[in-house]
Amino acid sequence: MPIDLICLDADDTLWHNMRYFDAAERAFADVLAPFADAGIARERIAAVEIRNLAHYGYGAKSFTLSMIETAVELGADVTAVARLLDVGRDLLAHPVELLDGIGDTLERLAATARLVLVTKGDLLHQEVKLAASGLGSLFSGVEIVSDKRPETFTRIFSRYAVAPERAVMAGDSMRSDILPALAAGAWAAFVPTDIVWAHEAAAAPTRHPRFRKLARLGDLPDWIATIG
Amino acid sequence: MPIDLICLDADDTLWHNMRYFDAAERAFADVLAPFADAGIARERIAAVEIRNLAHYGYGAKSFTLSMIETAVELGADVTAVARLLDVGRDLLAHPVELLDGIGDTLERLAATARLVLVTKGDLLHQEVKLAASGLGSLFSGVEIVSDKRPETFTRIFSRYAVAPERAVMAGDSMRSDILPALAAGAWAAFVPTDIVWAHEAAAAPTRHPRFRKLARLGDLPDWIATIG
Repeated sequence: MPIDLICLDADDTLWHNMRYFDAAERAFADVLAPFADAGIARERIAAVEIRNLAHYGYGAKSFTLSMIETAVELGADVTAVARLLDVGRDLLAHPVELLDGIGDTLERLAATARLVLVTKGDLLHQEVKLAASGLGSLFSGVEIVSDKRPETFTRIFSRYAVAPERAVMAGDSMRSDILPALAAGAWAAFVPTDIVWAHEAAAAPTRHPRFRKLARLGDLPDWIATIG
Repeated sequence: MPIDLICLDADDTLWHNMRYFDAAERAFADVLAPFADAGIARERIAAVEIRNLAHYGYGAKSFTLSMIETAVELGADVTAVARLLDVGRDLLAHPVELLDGIGDTLERLAATARLVLVTKGDLLHQEVKLAASGLGSLFSGVEIVSDKRPETFTRIFSRYAVAPERAVMAGDSMRSDILPALAAGAWAAFVPTDIVWAHEAAAAPTRHPRFRKLARLGDLPDWIATIG
């Protein structure tokens, strides 16, 4: 039974993302250097981010608010706050850099099935990044979601009128992309990146018939061909 | 030709919203009182909000970042910044208060056509509000969009497989709800509220055959019956 719908994560699956958050976190530690040791600053912001996740959700604006909150907690002054607003604005405005070979891979995939972008994060920011990527026209749809749970994927498959066993999800997060898509009955390709946010880490499924770990997204078309 | 799809704005159409932003703006002026006259503080934040709209988009997190930015510009101290973070968190956590009679109105509407929520603002926050409203099950879909342009409505009508002339949009913003829906070929019901954000104001269409101004959303079912 051939695959009819290919769902793709965006950040760090199609384009670089974590490296910009990492750079922002380094800038944050620099700004806070007069007030706190870099190790402590990083530890504190990681805790504040997790604490804020339920209220603020994902994305650059949420991260900016968490940076400011952490700075206040660590006794920073208002000049530091002003600089963190700039760090946050740079994070929102960073260029979109595709991962190697993504354009070709997406064209191959789009020739075999409908493509849908499935991504968390800030709605406006993700729309701006997709537009800047020049890849928008290859996608049949864009689903920006506040969280990726099995129901999220079930709803998307139903929206595109496809049975789960004819859908694939590919992404770099075991916790957000792979496990919920498998739970919803779809196939799932894990394409890990170098940098993994601790919050997104999870154990890989063992011997799952619909799961595959790939070295790069460029290997996805060949795997999908074996499913069909 | 009967109406098959009823699109509804959320903030200040189904539930109160501007009153919470107004309260946040008053709290903002109070926090800044030691640093700036209330009139000046309000003038400056209005300007900062407009300036940030293209980067931050709509919603409580964007407003919080604009409050902090304005505070920094007005020479506030870090204690003020901490209090503004709290004001922003209260804004995200405010209770969902439905406008009068909304539950009954939506049940009448849902009995005649599919309902779709079409709203700007922060994805997570709007999802939380819909869940808290208890109205979620009446809706066939929720479309959270970064802006409302004619193409936005065209895309939504196509997604729900309905011709524009069989769709109605109802909302409290002439600029965001009414004019783009009419431009997309749909019917549009303007249900104004007491408080209008200056950015959303626009002139009403004159003698447009598909436009109606209503005193309350409760008048929508009767108007839709005359279209059918």
